[in-house]
Amino acid sequence: MTTAPVDVDTARRDYAALVERGLSLDITRGKPSPRQLDLSADLLTLPNGQYKAEDGTDTRNYGGLKGLPELRRVFAGALQVPVDQLFAAGNSSLELMHDTIAQAMLSTLPGAPRRWADEPRIAMLCPVPGYDRHFALAERFGIELIPVPMTETGPDMDVVERLVAEDAAVKGIWCVPKYSNPTGVTFSAEVAGRLAAMPAAAPDFRIIWDNAYAVHHLTDDEPELADILALCAEAGNPDRAFVFGSTSKITFAGAGVGFFGASEANLAWWQSVLSKRTIGPDKVNQLRHALFLKDADGVRALMRKHAELIAPKFAAVDRILTEELSDLASWTKPTGGYFISLTVPEGTAKEVVRLAKEAGVALTPAGATHPYGNDPADAVIRIAPTFPELAEVEEAVRALAVCVRLAVAQRA
Amino acid sequence: MTTAPVDVDTARRDYAALVERGLSLDITRGKPSPRQLDLSADLLTLPNGQYKAEDGTDTRNYGGLKGLPELRRVFAGALQVPVDQLFAAGNSSLELMHDTIAQAMLSTLPGAPRRWADEPRIAMLCPVPGYDRHFALAERFGIELIPVPMTETGPDMDVVERLVAEDAAVKGIWCVPKYSNPTGVTFSAEVAGRLAAMPAAAPDFRIIWDNAYAVHHLTDDEPELADILALCAEAGNPDRAFVFGSTSKITFAGAGVGFFGASEANLAWWQSVLSKRTIGPDKVNQLRHALFLKDADGVRALMRKHAELIAPKFAAVDRILTEELSDLASWTKPTGGYFISLTVPEGTAKEVVRLAKEAGVALTPAGATHPYGNDPADAVIRIAPTFPELAEVEEAVRALAVCVRLAVAQRA
Repeated sequence: MTTAPVDVDTARRDYAALVERGLSLDITRGKPSPRQLDLSADLLTLPNGQYKAEDGTDTRNYGGLKGLPELRRVFAGALQVPVDQLFAAGNSSLELMHDTIAQAMLSTLPGAPRRWADEPRIAMLCPVPGYDRHFALAERFGIELIPVPMTETGPDMDVVERLVAEDAAVKGIWCVPKYSNPTGVTFSAEVAGRLAAMPAAAPDFRIIWDNAYAVHHLTDDEPELADILALCAEAGNPDRAFVFGSTSKITFAGAGVGFFGASEANLAWWQSVLSKRTIGPDKVNQLRHALFLKDADGVRALMRKHAELIAPKFAAVDRILTEELSDLASWTKPTGGYFISLTVPEGTAKEVVRLAKEAGVALTPAGATHPYGNDPADAVIRIAPTFPELAEVEEAVRALAVCVRLAVAQRA
Repeated sequence: MTTAPVDVDTARRDYAALVERGLSLDITRGKPSPRQLDLSADLLTLPNGQYKAEDGTDTRNYGGLKGLPELRRVFAGALQVPVDQLFAAGNSSLELMHDTIAQAMLSTLPGAPRRWADEPRIAMLCPVPGYDRHFALAERFGIELIPVPMTETGPDMDVVERLVAEDAAVKGIWCVPKYSNPTGVTFSAEVAGRLAAMPAAAPDFRIIWDNAYAVHHLTDDEPELADILALCAEAGNPDRAFVFGSTSKITFAGAGVGFFGASEANLAWWQSVLSKRTIGPDKVNQLRHALFLKDADGVRALMRKHAELIAPKFAAVDRILTEELSDLASWTKPTGGYFISLTVPEGTAKEVVRLAKEAGVALTPAGATHPYGNDPADAVIRIAPTFPELAEVEEAVRALAVCVRLAVAQRA
């Protein structure tokens, strides 16, 4: 990226004209659009009177801690977790991640010397730019957040290996391994292999493998993701990975099903703590999903329809950024997932977000992609183009470009 | 209760004949029967294509941490919690109780000097006989369980007041205030008032008010339950009570909605920790419930139909126990809830449960009604008559009586 000089007067005039228009647009969060949600309209009448699971279980009643086998089977392949090692749970994988960490705080994990609440210090590695809710979840438990740089192939493994080998307080690393939030990067096989095999000072080190976008392709060029559970087992660290996924961006964002997969030892631990918390998940909703999605092909067909709706929005962002900001900024060109990561000249991201807000365009706060909201370069802005209509996305990104040009001009 | 001598030979002969029959019956858990679940069959097609909440919220998408207002309104009266102070959550109130305690372990409660995980010792009072899942949930966090006797009007408040005033490690008391599990007792206004007003050595003492059977009447003689949140506020202890409820035994046991109510300060605390865990509950299921139940009268009408199905089962248990065990045992005659508590002669409950199991009748383990599974008198057996068909309930209770007579005869 070059940073050609921007004419301040032009930038000011353009921005004034923008404010004049009184826009009200929002590209902050990775939410599916109403049209995407319409794709799963059948869920609003299913299970259509049916309540028996394939094994005869009455889904309306208590029980079934692991979730319905027929739904776990639909997602075992996509999440790369053997069916027997995959739990289907409530409506959110975020809460599953939260709860595995909360339970690790309060109940000794397999391999752990003690419960995390009794550790003098706990830290987790946070590839940046990354997912703000991961960071907030960990920070809230008093866990120290250590940023590590993302590369084109995943987190910088030289840095990760050094920190994990040296510091026994480092208990985990946050990963969105496929179509990463917000960079769109899919971890390479080499990165996954090194994560699985690296020596860890903490015997209870965990990889939080948030495979949120496992099937969320925007193109037919689908990257292969390494099987982290298998790699960990092969490397002699069978209990190292916690795998998460959900249907939040497949069916309904608020009324889907979350999944948790791990080793037998981790699952025995999980089942023992979970059984004190609940008598079982909402199996009717799981049946509803199993009947709707049917199998992995059903998921694949549904995701193609999602791509048809959202790929044009990603293309529009790329096109407009190319037209407007080629001289000033760089951005990712993801082939899946929900985000584009825009890198503006150092020291301008916060100002861009502020200017955009005043012009009626809501952006995720600058810095949100970094632990403690602190992007030292003040350069990363996350763009979430899925929720608004295409025309609104276009308008928002053109407005964003005006704000970038002004912020850069003001700084110069 | 008198303990008339039982003829050993007769008892043995009766038991042998019972075993001979090869029964397979289960009166262990408080589960609704399939016929009860059928009452809510509409939930298997609702929301019938609809997805907008009354305020226009798209229930399919993310958001709405507190849950749908229209559903919270349906239950605010029954749970005696102002709508604004009532959260509608996932499919279980047990998990809400678990999570409030887990969060109290990890995040300082309003009024608390520190998080519970950093306390050298934590204890909770457990009225006995009580609910085994409450006890297991607390025990799992290393919380010490202190039994206090139940009376006809609630826990023995002289004992409770002394323990709570003297011991700052006592952080809470488990309560099922209406149609208590398993005694059927509804706490009197005096008991509720004393709970709300008693001096507590722990500034963060909490009443866990598990109002699981708020609307679960078996007769038209509906006891009035005191409003614990109001009583606590009046007594100057506004943050003392956590109120829980759910639709588990109103609609679907596995696919209902749980509720949590508390003071503004407690809710601010809850919202701050919850917001790191989830973006919101399953609002589609909440909409489904709101459309189905409509209002408090809808709940009342539905609960009448439940009573029509299960009251005959409770009556049958009472009738058969009267016929068979008047000379040996005593039992509760609840006017609501899900359980009958049977008291057999001291030192025989475990043996009764063992004998019943060998005769093919599954009973909740003796002692389950007490912390650590330890009923010092070995005398309490919980009967759950709702799930089996009426004829099976009758058969199971007749079998149970045979086992009681043999256990008593053997002991003599």
